[in-house]
Amino acid sequence: MARHSYETGRLNLPFVGIATFGKRPYVEDWSKIDADIAILGAPFDFGTQFRSGARFGPRSVREASTLFSFGHAGAYDHEDDAVYLGGDVRIVDIGDADIVHTDTETSHANIEAGVRAILKAGALPVVIGGDHSINIPCIRAFDETCAKDGPIHIVQIDAHLDFVDVRHGVRHGHGNPMRRAAEKDFVSGITALGIRNVSSTTQDGYEAARAMGDDILSVRQVRRLGTEGVLSRLPKGARIYVTIDIDGFDPSIAPGTGTPSHGGFLYYEVLEILQGIAREHDVVGIDLVEVAPDYDPAGSTPILAAQVLLNFLGFIFHERAKRA
Amino acid sequence: MARHSYETGRLNLPFVGIATFGKRPYVEDWSKIDADIAILGAPFDFGTQFRSGARFGPRSVREASTLFSFGHAGAYDHEDDAVYLGGDVRIVDIGDADIVHTDTETSHANIEAGVRAILKAGALPVVIGGDHSINIPCIRAFDETCAKDGPIHIVQIDAHLDFVDVRHGVRHGHGNPMRRAAEKDFVSGITALGIRNVSSTTQDGYEAARAMGDDILSVRQVRRLGTEGVLSRLPKGARIYVTIDIDGFDPSIAPGTGTPSHGGFLYYEVLEILQGIAREHDVVGIDLVEVAPDYDPAGSTPILAAQVLLNFLGFIFHERAKRA
Amino acid sequence: MARHSYETGRLNLPFVGIATFGKRPYVEDWSKIDADIAILGAPFDFGTQFRSGARFGPRSVREASTLFSFGHAGAYDHEDDAVYLGGDVRIVDIGDADIVHTDTETSHANIEAGVRAILKAGALPVVIGGDHSINIPCIRAFDETCAKDGPIHIVQIDAHLDFVDVRHGVRHGHGNPMRRAAEKDFVSGITALGIRNVSSTTQDGYEAARAMGDDILSVRQVRRLGTEGVLSRLPKGARIYVTIDIDGFDPSIAPGTGTPSHGGFLYYEVLEILQGIAREHDVVGIDLVEVAPDYDPAGSTPILAAQVLLNFLGFIFHERAKRA
Amino acid sequence: MARHSYETGRLNLPFVGIATFGKRPYVEDWSKIDADIAILGAPFDFGTQFRSGARFGPRSVREASTLFSFGHAGAYDHEDDAVYLGGDVRIVDIGDADIVHTDTETSHANIEAGVRAILKAGALPVVIGGDHSINIPCIRAFDETCAKDGPIHIVQIDAHLDFVDVRHGVRHGHGNPMRRAAEKDFVSGITALGIRNVSSTTQDGYEAARAMGDDILSVRQVRRLGTEGVLSRLPKGARIYVTIDIDGFDPSIAPGTGTPSHGGFLYYEVLEILQGIAREHDVVGIDLVEVAPDYDPAGSTPILAAQVLLNFLGFIFHERAKRA
Amino acid sequence: MARHSYETGRLNLPFVGIATFGKRPYVEDWSKIDADIAILGAPFDFGTQFRSGARFGPRSVREASTLFSFGHAGAYDHEDDAVYLGGDVRIVDIGDADIVHTDTETSHANIEAGVRAILKAGALPVVIGGDHSINIPCIRAFDETCAKDGPIHIVQIDAHLDFVDVRHGVRHGHGNPMRRAAEKDFVSGITALGIRNVSSTTQDGYEAARAMGDDILSVRQVRRLGTEGVLSRLPKGARIYVTIDIDGFDPSIAPGTGTPSHGGFLYYEVLEILQGIAREHDVVGIDLVEVAPDYDPAGSTPILAAQVLLNFLGFIFHERAKRA
Amino acid sequence: MARHSYETGRLNLPFVGIATFGKRPYVEDWSKIDADIAILGAPFDFGTQFRSGARFGPRSVREASTLFSFGHAGAYDHEDDAVYLGGDVRIVDIGDADIVHTDTETSHANIEAGVRAILKAGALPVVIGGDHSINIPCIRAFDETCAKDGPIHIVQIDAHLDFVDVRHGVRHGHGNPMRRAAEKDFVSGITALGIRNVSSTTQDGYEAARAMGDDILSVRQVRRLGTEGVLSRLPKGARIYVTIDIDGFDPSIAPGTGTPSHGGFLYYEVLEILQGIAREHDVVGIDLVEVAPDYDPAGSTPILAAQVLLNFLGFIFHERAKRA
Repeated sequence: MARHSYETGRLNLPFVGIATFGKRPYVEDWSKIDADIAILGAPFDFGTQFRSGARFGPRSVREASTLFSFGHAGAYDHEDDAVYLGGDVRIVDIGDADIVHTDTETSHANIEAGVRAILKAGALPVVIGGDHSINIPCIRAFDETCAKDGPIHIVQIDAHLDFVDVRHGVRHGHGNPMRRAAEKDFVSGITALGIRNVSSTTQDGYEAARAMGDDILSVRQVRRLGTEGVLSRLPKGARIYVTIDIDGFDPSIAPGTGTPSHGGFLYYEVLEILQGIAREHDVVGIDLVEVAPDYDPAGSTPILAAQVLLNFLGFIFHERAKRA
Repeated sequence: MARHSYETGRLNLPFVGIATFGKRPYVEDWSKIDADIAILGAPFDFGTQFRSGARFGPRSVREASTLFSFGHAGAYDHEDDAVYLGGDVRIVDIGDADIVHTDTETSHANIEAGVRAILKAGALPVVIGGDHSINIPCIRAFDETCAKDGPIHIVQIDAHLDFVDVRHGVRHGHGNPMRRAAEKDFVSGITALGIRNVSSTTQDGYEAARAMGDDILSVRQVRRLGTEGVLSRLPKGARIYVTIDIDGFDPSIAPGTGTPSHGGFLYYEVLEILQGIAREHDVVGIDLVEVAPDYDPAGSTPILAAQVLLNFLGFIFHERAKRA
Repeated sequence: MARHSYETGRLNLPFVGIATFGKRPYVEDWSKIDADIAILGAPFDFGTQFRSGARFGPRSVREASTLFSFGHAGAYDHEDDAVYLGGDVRIVDIGDADIVHTDTETSHANIEAGVRAILKAGALPVVIGGDHSINIPCIRAFDETCAKDGPIHIVQIDAHLDFVDVRHGVRHGHGNPMRRAAEKDFVSGITALGIRNVSSTTQDGYEAARAMGDDILSVRQVRRLGTEGVLSRLPKGARIYVTIDIDGFDPSIAPGTGTPSHGGFLYYEVLEILQGIAREHDVVGIDLVEVAPDYDPAGSTPILAAQVLLNFLGFIFHERAKRA
Repeated sequence: MARHSYETGRLNLPFVGIATFGKRPYVEDWSKIDADIAILGAPFDFGTQFRSGARFGPRSVREASTLFSFGHAGAYDHEDDAVYLGGDVRIVDIGDADIVHTDTETSHANIEAGVRAILKAGALPVVIGGDHSINIPCIRAFDETCAKDGPIHIVQIDAHLDFVDVRHGVRHGHGNPMRRAAEKDFVSGITALGIRNVSSTTQDGYEAARAMGDDILSVRQVRRLGTEGVLSRLPKGARIYVTIDIDGFDPSIAPGTGTPSHGGFLYYEVLEILQGIAREHDVVGIDLVEVAPDYDPAGSTPILAAQVLLNFLGFIFHERAKRA
Repeated sequence: MARHSYETGRLNLPFVGIATFGKRPYVEDWSKIDADIAILGAPFDFGTQFRSGARFGPRSVREASTLFSFGHAGAYDHEDDAVYLGGDVRIVDIGDADIVHTDTETSHANIEAGVRAILKAGALPVVIGGDHSINIPCIRAFDETCAKDGPIHIVQIDAHLDFVDVRHGVRHGHGNPMRRAAEKDFVSGITALGIRNVSSTTQDGYEAARAMGDDILSVRQVRRLGTEGVLSRLPKGARIYVTIDIDGFDPSIAPGTGTPSHGGFLYYEVLEILQGIAREHDVVGIDLVEVAPDYDPAGSTPILAAQVLLNFLGFIFHERAKRA
Repeated sequence: MARHSYETGRLNLPFVGIATFGKRPYVEDWSKIDADIAILGAPFDFGTQFRSGARFGPRSVREASTLFSFGHAGAYDHEDDAVYLGGDVRIVDIGDADIVHTDTETSHANIEAGVRAILKAGALPVVIGGDHSINIPCIRAFDETCAKDGPIHIVQIDAHLDFVDVRHGVRHGHGNPMRRAAEKDFVSGITALGIRNVSSTTQDGYEAARAMGDDILSVRQVRRLGTEGVLSRLPKGARIYVTIDIDGFDPSIAPGTGTPSHGGFLYYEVLEILQGIAREHDVVGIDLVEVAPDYDPAGSTPILAAQVLLNFLGFIFHERAKRA
C-alpha cells in the first residue's frame, strides 16, 4: 500500500481549501456521525472576565490545523518513529454548536447536545472553545456514558483553578467549571496542572477544591515532579477527560487568550504529560478552550492549539491500535 | 480672566495622566454627582452577533479623549470662532456600571441604575458602550423624567436597524434595542440615519419599525436630503436622545467595531447633523456604542468616538449658554 | 410562506459554523455542481510584484462573508425594497483550485479546470483570488462557451492597467492579465475603471491597450462621467465578465492588498456601476482578486470583498428573475 | 531612444533592493551633492505631544517609495499623458541628519546643516520627518538663499495650526513651527490648509497667527473654495515652501501618525493643490512630517507620503522643464 | 471576618472601571499621600536610542494591572499559601509626573519631585516609566532619606549596562542611568543582572562600571549561580533599590520594548530573585521601565510588568508584616 | 588607538540612516566586492507551502541589524570579554538578487550568480532569504570552490527536514533544499538540528535522508546531547556551510515565519552550537531564511535573525584572527 497519495490526487498545500479541522470531512447532520473522533466548535465567550474573543477560537484552530495537514496518509514523527493519524483513524468535523447571544443557558445546552450526539455515535468528542465555561455542558453530557462505563477523572491544564462556586449569581462563567464538574457524582476527581498566581478563585475556593478531590499543582511543582511524577498521581486505570485551557501554557507561546498569566507551561512539558496519559489511560473526552486569536497577530496560539490537539489525538489512537 | 492656565499649572500633555474621560474628575459615589455632564461606561458585549470586544470601548474612548485635552479652559474652534467646553461646563466621569459575566439582565440593570443616578443629579447622561444592547437600559432609565418632562424622540446613527423583536428568545441583544425603545410610551418616535445593507433585521422588522414610528434613512438618502433636510424631519421642539452606533460611520474611519458595514457616514456628515440637533433641540441623553478597539491597531475608532462626543457636548452646552 | 426560518432551525449567528462562502454548501466533486452560482478559490500569489499574501484571500473572504449571512431566506435591502439571494438562488462553494508552489503554469491550469467545470455545469463562476494573474486562466476557460454564445466584454475595476506584454520572460504575472485577455479572439473589448498613478505598465503599454480596444478611465474620469455615463460606454447588450481588483478601491477601505494606490473608488461608486451592469447586461463571470488579509488587522478589506460580491450577485439574480 | 530599460538591466521589482528613496543613489558625503532633488531624513520625535514614533518616518517612507519604483525611465501618468521623473531628473538620497537623544537643539542643528548642504548644492531639499518641529531647522536654513533670492511663502497642509509661541519653556516642539517661521523676516506669509478641531494652539494663537500673516483655512473652507479658489489666495509669483503634516490628511488614509484628527483631506484634494502650486510657483523646499509607521500595520500612511511626494516632485520638474 | 467582599459590593471584573494601578485610589494632591505604596507614572521617552513609545508605559501597565484585580481582600497564592496585598496594605496611584516635550531636564525634575513627595509621605515609591533615563531623577530624589537612613544598593534587571558617561553631550539618556547612579555618594553599589550582547556601553564603560562597584552578571551567569548564589552577592543588610528594565526579560515575554535583546530572563528567574530580596532586605524604591506597549498587540509585556510589580509588592509587604 | 570614534563622527543612533546590513557600505557592482563578508538578500518566497511574506526578510533583517550598530569599532561582549567585528572585519552589503515574479528558475539563477560573485571575491557569503528554497542556488554556487578546496558539510538549523525529492513536479520549493544539497557530490553530509513534528517530508523522505548521510536530531535530542555532544557528531575539520531556517527557533522568539512549529530552539542553544562551529571549523557560507516580518508586529523575529548573524559572524572572525 502506498504510504501517501500525493501523486494520485491533489497536492493540497496547507493554505488551500476549506478550513475544517485537519481538512477532514464536515458532517452537518449530527445523527449521522460515523467516526473515531468528532470535532465540535463551541464559540461561546460571554463567560470571560477580561478580554473576550474566544468565540473565534474554533475557526482559528481549524485554520491553523491545516498547517499540519500536509500528508494524505498520516504524519510521520521521527522522534517516535511512528506515523500518527493514518487513514485508519476517521476524524470528522461536525461544525459548531448553535450559540445564542445574551443567553448562556441555551448556548450551553446546544453544546451539551453536540457532545451527547458524539458520545452516542461512539466517537471521541473533541470540543474547541470558546471560553472555559463550555467545559460545563461538555461534562454534563457524560452522565449517561458514565452511568454505563464508570466515572471520569478530569485532567485540567490551566493557569487558573476555575473553582468559584457562585458569585453575584454566576454559576456558569469561565471561573466556575471545575467546581461544577466536582459536584457531579460521575466525576471521580480532578488533577489541576499549571495553576499559578492570582485568579478569580479565592483562598476559600482552593480549600473547597482540595476538599472535593482536586489535586492542585503549579507549573513549578509539575517541573519538580517531572512527567512521570505527575502521571503517578493520576488514579490508575482511570478514564480520563482532558480539559486544556490554553492559558495553562506560557504567554510566550499562547499570547492570544483572554486572561494570560506569565510563568506557564512550555510545549514539551504538556505534550509529554498528554503522551503519558494516552499511554496509560483511556481518554474519553477533550476540550481545548480560551484561544482568542485576534490578540495574536502572529497566529502562534491557534497553531499551538492545533499542534497539541493533533499530536494528542495521534498518541491516543496510536496507543489504542497497539492495545487492539 | 486668563483664557488658559498653562503657565500656572501643569502642561499636562495628552499622553500624561490617568485616563478618565477628557481627564475630568472621577466621581465614584453615584449619589454625589454634581455636574452638567456625567460620563458612564457600560462595558457589556454579550449582545454582539459577530466580533466581540466592545467591553473595552469605555477605556479606549477615555484614553482617546485625552488627545483632545490640551487646553485648560476649553477648546477653541476656528471654524465656529467659539470656545467649547470651557471652565463653565462641569463634566465628571462616574466610571463603569458593574458588569456580571454571563448575566445580561443584571448587567443591564446596573447600567440602568447608573443612568438613573445621573438623571436624578440633573446632569446629561453620556453612556459609552459596550454593544448596542446597552441602549436598552439607558432608555428604560428615562421613564421617570419623561413622565415629568414629556417624551423623548430618538435619533439613531447606525448601519443596522436593530429592530428585531424576539428571536430564539433573545430580546436584549444588540439587534433589539430600537424595538425595545419603540415599545415605550415615553418614546415618541425614532429617526434612524445611516441604515444600509443586510443586517439581522428582516423585511418584517422594517415594516414593523415603520409602523411603530421609525423614520428610516440610508446614508445615500441622508446625502440627498442634506443636513437641513434631515433636521426638518425631526419633530419640532422634540426632546432628543441620541444613540450613536459607531458602525453608522464608514469602516474607513471606524474599523474597530463588531459588525462593520461599508458605505457609512463620513465625519462631517454626522457632525453637522449633531450640531443642528444641538441648535434646534434639547438633547437629554447620549450613548455611543460598539467601539471594539482591539480590531483597530491605529486607534482611529476610539479617536473618532472621542472627537464626536467632545464636539457634540461642546455644541450642546454652547447652545444652552446662548439660550440662557 | 415564512420569509425566514429562524424559529424552526438554528440561530446560526455569523461567528458560528464552518466558513464556506455565505455558509453555503461545499461541493467537493466538481463533476456534481448543481447550482446557479459556484464559488471557486484561487489562492495563488506568486505573480505579485510587491507584498504577497493574496493566497489567504479566499479563506478571508469566506470568513467575512459569514457576517452577511444572518438570514435564512435572503437579505432585505430597504433602499431597493428587495430581498436578495433568497432561497431560489442556489449558491455552492466548490473549494479551492489546487496550487503547486513554485509552479505558475500548473497552478493556473488547475484554476482553469475549476472554471471550466463551473461553466460546464451552467453555473455562474465567481473566482476569489489570489493575485490578479488568476484572471488569466479564468478567461482562458471561456473559449468554449464563447464559441457557442458569442464573445465577452471585460469590465475591470482596478488601480493598475495590468497590460504588460512580456517582461523578463514573464507573461503570467499580476501585471499581465488584461494583455492576455485582449489577445483572445473571444474577448471583444475591455473597459478599465479606476486606473491611476504609476504601475508596472509603461506608456507603451497604454498605447497598446488603447489600440487593442481598452477603454481606460481613471477614478476622477469615472466621477466626472457618473454611473450612467460609464454604463453608456459599455457595448450595448454585451455579455460581461467583471474582474475586480480590490486595489481599485481606495486604501481607506481596502488596505489589505499587495500594491495599494491612493485615490481609489469608494464603495457606492463601484456598487452602483455593478448594479447598472446587472440591470443592463448578462454577467457571465466574476473574479475578485488581490485581497491580502494579513495586511489588514481590522478585516475591512475581506469584508468589503464579501459585501461587494454578495450585493453584486444579489443584483444579477434579482434582474434575472425579473427578466424570466 | 528606449523609453525604459527593462530588457537590458534588472527587473528590480519594488520589493527587491536597498530601500533608499525611490531606490535612487545614496550620497553619504554632503559636500558632494550633485542632483536636482536631495532627500534628507530627519528622524526626530521628541517634539510630539501624543504618540511618538515619527522617528521611523524616513525609513518607512523610503521603503514605501519602492512601490512606485517600477520603471527605469520615469512614470507614465495616463490622466496627464505625461512621463514624470524621467532620467533627466536627478534625485539623490543623502540619508538622515544625525539625531542626539534627549537633545533637541543639537538634533535640530544637524537637520539644519543638511538642508544648508542641499541648498548650497543648488538642489531642491525634500526633508522627511520626524515630527513637525523639524520644520524649524528646515526654515532656518533658508536665510542665506532668501537673502539672495527673496523671501519664501509657506504653504502648510496640516490639521493643527502649530502656532504656539512658548509654553512651559517649549519653543521648538511640534506645536511651535509655524510661529517660529512667521517670526523670520524672510518668510513673507503662511497659508495654512486643513486646520480643524482642537489642538495645542489656543484662541490667542489663532489671533496672533492671523496678525502675523497666516491665512487659515479649514478642510471645509478649502472644499468650498475649490482648488482654484485656494490657489488664488497665494501671493502671485511667490517662491513657495511646502510643509506637509501627514495629519492634514484624513485618518482614513493616514492613520499612522501621532495626533490624528478626523475630517481631514482626501488624496486628490491635496494632490490638485500641489499640482497647481507646481504650475504657478517656484517650489524651493518641501518637508513631509509626522508619519509614525508603527501605528499603521497596513502601511497606508507611508505609501500615501511616498505617493504624494513622488507626484509632487514629478509635477515640479515637469513644469520646470516646460518653462525651460 | 469575611475574606472578601464580593457579595456586599460590586463584582468589579478586571475589564470594568477606571484604570488606576490595581484599581487603587487616585491621589491627585501630592501633599496628601497617605499610603504604604505610591505609584507614580513617568511617561518620558526622549531618551531612547531605537524605538520610542515608552511614554505609554504607565497607562498600559495600569490597564494590565486590572487583570490581577479580581479580589477585594488580597490575592491568594497557593504556592506560597499566602494572601498578598490584603486590605492592610494601602496602595495609592498618584498619577504621572508632568512631562514637557523637547525638554529632558524639566521632565526629569518633575519626576524627581514626585518621588520626593512619596518619600516625604513615608510611602514606598514605585515609578513606572518611561525609558530607563527616568531612573536618574528617581535616584536623585533619595539624597535626603539616604542622608538620614544610609546609602542604597541598586539591583538592576536589564539587558544593557546603561553605563555610558557622556557621549555627544548626552548625560541623561537611557544609556546613562547606572553611571549617574554610581556617581552618587549615597549609592553604595550596583548589582546588574541580565546584561548581555552588544549595547551602547563600550568596553571602556564596562571597565569603568566594575571600577565603580558594579557587579555585572549575564543571564547565563545568573543561571549558573542560581537564585541563592545571586542573592549571596548582595551586601548583607543593604537597603535595596530595584530598577527593572523590562528588556532584562526575554523578548518572548517582553516584546513590547524599545531595544529588545534575545536571551533574556524568564519569569520565575526574576520573580524568585525579587522574592529573595524582599525576604532578606529592606526594599526602599522600585522603578520599572521601557514598556512600549504599542509594539506588543497581544499585551504580554504590560501584563508581565503588572504581574511582576504586584507580586514583588506582595512579597515586600508580606515580609514586612512578618517582621513587624 | 581610540576604541571607538563617537566623539569625532556622528552619534549615528540605531534608528538613524539608510538600512543596509549593520549600516555597512552598499556595493552595487558585484564585480567590485572587496571585503571579508558580503551580505546578499534573496527576497524569493514562491516556494512556501503556508504563509508567504519571506520576500521582506532581507529588508527586515537589515533594519533590525541597525539595533546592534551602536558602536564604531566593534561590539564588546562582556561574557566573552571580546570585541567582535571591529574595524578589521570588512563587511559589505551587495543588495538583493534580482527576483522575477512567477519564475522560480530565473530567480534562483540570479541568487546563484550573487553567491558566485561573493565567492569569487574571496568573501564569506551570507545570504538572507527568502524562503528555504533559496538555499538551492546558494549550494549550487559552491561547485567551483569545492572542486578546489574540498567538499562542504551542511549544518541545518530547522524545524523541518526539507528532504522532499519531487512532488507534483516540484523540485525547487522550500521543502526540497536538503535533498537537492545531498545530491551534490561536493556536499559530504548534512547535520540537521531541531527537526520536529510533522512536515511535508514523509517517512520515505526521512529514510532517504538517512541513507544519503543526513544526521537528524530533534530539539529534545539536541538538548540531551548538549552543545559538545552535538559538535562531536560533526566530521572533524570539515568545512561547514550553515543554513538557518528561522523556524528552527521556537515560535516564542520567531513568530514571524511561514510555517511555525512549537517546541523549537531557544536563543543560547543555537548560539552556543554556532560558537562551537566557529571555533572548530572553517565556516564557508551562511544562509538565514524564512523570516516573514509582517507576521510579527513586535519585530522579534528579524531582531533574532540579526542578533544571531552578527554574533555568529563575530565568532567566526574572532576565531580566524586567533588562528592567523
